[in-house]
Amino acid sequence: MAELFSPDVYARRLTDAAVLAARAGLAGLIVGSGPELAYLTGSWVSSHERLTALVVPAHGTPRLVVPATDAGDLADSAVPELNIEVSGWVDGDDAHALAVAALPAGPVALGSSLTTLHVLRLQELVGAPTVPAATTLSELFMRKDPAEIDQLRRAAHAIDAVHARVPSLLREGRTEAEVAAEVDALILDGHDSVDFVIVGSGANGANPHHSFSDRQLTRGDVVVVDLGGTLGPGYHSDSTRTYVVGGAGEADPEVVGAYEVLHRAHAAAVAAVRPGVTAASIDAAAREAITDAGYGELFIHRTGHGIGLSTHEEPFIMAGNDLVLEEGMCFSIEPGIYRSGRWGMRLEDIVTVTADGVELLTRQPRELH
Amino acid sequence: MAELFSPDVYARRLTDAAVLAARAGLAGLIVGSGPELAYLTGSWVSSHERLTALVVPAHGTPRLVVPATDAGDLADSAVPELNIEVSGWVDGDDAHALAVAALPAGPVALGSSLTTLHVLRLQELVGAPTVPAATTLSELFMRKDPAEIDQLRRAAHAIDAVHARVPSLLREGRTEAEVAAEVDALILDGHDSVDFVIVGSGANGANPHHSFSDRQLTRGDVVVVDLGGTLGPGYHSDSTRTYVVGGAGEADPEVVGAYEVLHRAHAAAVAAVRPGVTAASIDAAAREAITDAGYGELFIHRTGHGIGLSTHEEPFIMAGNDLVLEEGMCFSIEPGIYRSGRWGMRLEDIVTVTADGVELLTRQPRELH
Repeated sequence: MAELFSPDVYARRLTDAAVLAARAGLAGLIVGSGPELAYLTGSWVSSHERLTALVVPAHGTPRLVVPATDAGDLADSAVPELNIEVSGWVDGDDAHALAVAALPAGPVALGSSLTTLHVLRLQELVGAPTVPAATTLSELFMRKDPAEIDQLRRAAHAIDAVHARVPSLLREGRTEAEVAAEVDALILDGHDSVDFVIVGSGANGANPHHSFSDRQLTRGDVVVVDLGGTLGPGYHSDSTRTYVVGGAGEADPEVVGAYEVLHRAHAAAVAAVRPGVTAASIDAAAREAITDAGYGELFIHRTGHGIGLSTHEEPFIMAGNDLVLEEGMCFSIEPGIYRSGRWGMRLEDIVTVTADGVELLTRQPRELH
Repeated sequence: MAELFSPDVYARRLTDAAVLAARAGLAGLIVGSGPELAYLTGSWVSSHERLTALVVPAHGTPRLVVPATDAGDLADSAVPELNIEVSGWVDGDDAHALAVAALPAGPVALGSSLTTLHVLRLQELVGAPTVPAATTLSELFMRKDPAEIDQLRRAAHAIDAVHARVPSLLREGRTEAEVAAEVDALILDGHDSVDFVIVGSGANGANPHHSFSDRQLTRGDVVVVDLGGTLGPGYHSDSTRTYVVGGAGEADPEVVGAYEVLHRAHAAAVAAVRPGVTAASIDAAAREAITDAGYGELFIHRTGHGIGLSTHEEPFIMAGNDLVLEEGMCFSIEPGIYRSGRWGMRLEDIVTVTADGVELLTRQPRELH
C-alpha cells in the first residue's frame, strides 16, 4: 500500500484542477490511471484495457469511473475521504458514457495516460473539442510543494545509498546482468519497487537506453550505471554515475579527458538553475561546455526531464523549451558523452529550484571512480 | 535480446496490414511502441514520452519514426531486414509531422498504445478522421499462426512448471510476499521476464486484482495464485490455480463445494470452445454453471481475454462480444468465485481454438490441492 498525504492535500489539488479547468474554458477534465490520477486522489488503481477515469468538472462533484472488480483498491487511496462519486461499472455498462455524463457540454481536457481506444471513444461522446489535460495539470504538477520535495529527497537519498555500494559490485569477470541483479536487490532495500537498472559497460555504455547484458566486465571498462526506483506515495529516484572497473587509474586517457568535460558541463548546468531562466537555457549551458570541448556530436540527448510521480514529466530540459523555471520544480540534469562502439558516460543528479538557486537532491560523489 | 521470427514473417504481416488498411479506405496506420509494433517488426523499442511510430501506408514503403537515441535498439529487431525507411529524430524536429508526412491525405488508423498527447497531435496534423488501428490489426493479431501458438505453448509449459512447485512454497507462517519472491525467481527460470505475481490468501483472494501482502498463511487458507511471464519474441503466459494451505482436506466444506462448481464452470467453458461460436457464448457457458449453483453474484469479472504479444487483447470472452471464434485464436478461460471478506478462487488456463474444437495449452492438474 502506497503512503498517502493527508486527504486535504488531495482535496485542494482537486479544487485547483477544477479552477484551472474553468479558467481554461473547459467543461472539465477526464484523467486515466497513472501519475495524474495518483496526484489528484492518491490512487494507483489500474485496470488494464478497461476504463478507469476520474472526471473533474469545472464546477461540481468529481466522479471516478472504475471497473467494479477494481473498486476495492480505492481503499488504499484518499478517495474514501474525498468528495468523489465512485461509479463502478461491469461488462455491458458503457463506461465511457458514464464518464462523459458527469460533465456539461463543452470542450474537455483528456489526461496523458489515456490510450487510443479510450481517447477516440471519449471524443465521440464529448462531441466538442478535446485538448491535453497535461497543459492544465502540469501547472500543478510541475511546482512541487515542500512535502513532495521531501519525498523526492528521500528517494534521492535511497538511490545515493545504492550508488555507494556499486563500486564494490563492479569486479572483473562478472557480467552486467549479475551486477544488475544485485543492484536490483539493493534498490528494493530502500524503495518500494525498482523502475529500471542500466549497467552499460564498454560499447554498451554508448547506447543510452541499454539495460544490461551478459557482457563480462574487464579491467579499465567504463560502466554507465543509471538507477531508479519508487517509494512513498509514488515518487521516483533517478541517478547515474560512471565508473571504471579497477578504478579511475585504469581508464584510457581519452576517457579521463572526456569525463572532465562531462563533469564541467554538469556543473555548468547545475549552476545555471534558478527561478526565472528557461529550461532551454539549462540545456544550452551543458551543451555549450561539451561542444566547446569538441564532443558536441556525442551528446545525443536532452539534458534532463522533470521527475515526481512519473520518472519523465515536465519540465523537459531541452532546446526549444521556453518554459520559465520556478521555485519547486524538480528535474534531472544528466549530460552524457557517447563514443559509439567504445564507451559511454553520463552524470545525472536530481535538482530542485529554490527561491534563489538550486538544491541538489542526489549527492553521491561525482568523480570518475 | 528478444527472439525473432524470420524476416519474411514480418514482411508478410506488414503487407497484410497495408492491404487491410486499403480495404478499409484508410490512408494508412500509425502504430506506437508496444505489441502492435512488435507484431509488425519484431521491435520492442520504447522511448518513454517521446514518439516512436511505425507508419504503414495503404500503398508504399512503411516509415519508422524513432528518437535517434533509440534507433540503435532496432538492431535487435527485424527492421534492418525489412523494407522500412527509418527516420531518426532529435529534439527540435517535429516527430509527429515526420510520421504524418509518410501518408497521403485521408482517414488514418491509430495504434492502441499511443497516448493522449500523441493522439491529439497526430489528429491535428492528419486533418481527417482517425479510427482505432486495433479494428484492422486485430484481424491479424487474433488468429495466431502455428509458430505463434508454439510460442504460447512454450510459455504455457513454463508457467505450468512454476505452478508444479507452488504447493511446496505455501507453508503455514510464511507471508504472501515471501512466497511471491520465490515464485518470481521460479518464473525467471523459464521466462525472460516476470509480468505479475498474485498470491491472494484468505480474504485477499476475494480481490481479483490483489498482488501480495505481508499476510501470513495459516492452515486451511484458500490461496489464489495467478502468474504470468514473457518469453521468446514477447509471448505471455498466464495461469491461475487455487490452493489450500495444508492440502484440500483442510478446506472449509463451503470452499470445497464452491470449487466443484468452479471446476465444472471452467470445464463447461472449455468444452464450448470451437470455431463458429461467439466469445459471448463461452462466457455464458461458464456463467450459467456458476449461476445455477447460486454463486452468480460472486463471479464478478469476464471469463477471459485473448493473449499473445500482450497479456490482455482480443478476443475478450465476455457478455456482449459477438465476435465469432476462429481457428488459431488464443485466450484465457478463468472463471472465479469471490466471497468478499473470506476467500476467493479462480481457475485459469490458456486455450487455442483448433480446426474442430480446443487445445488446452496450460495443463497443470485442476483439482483444489
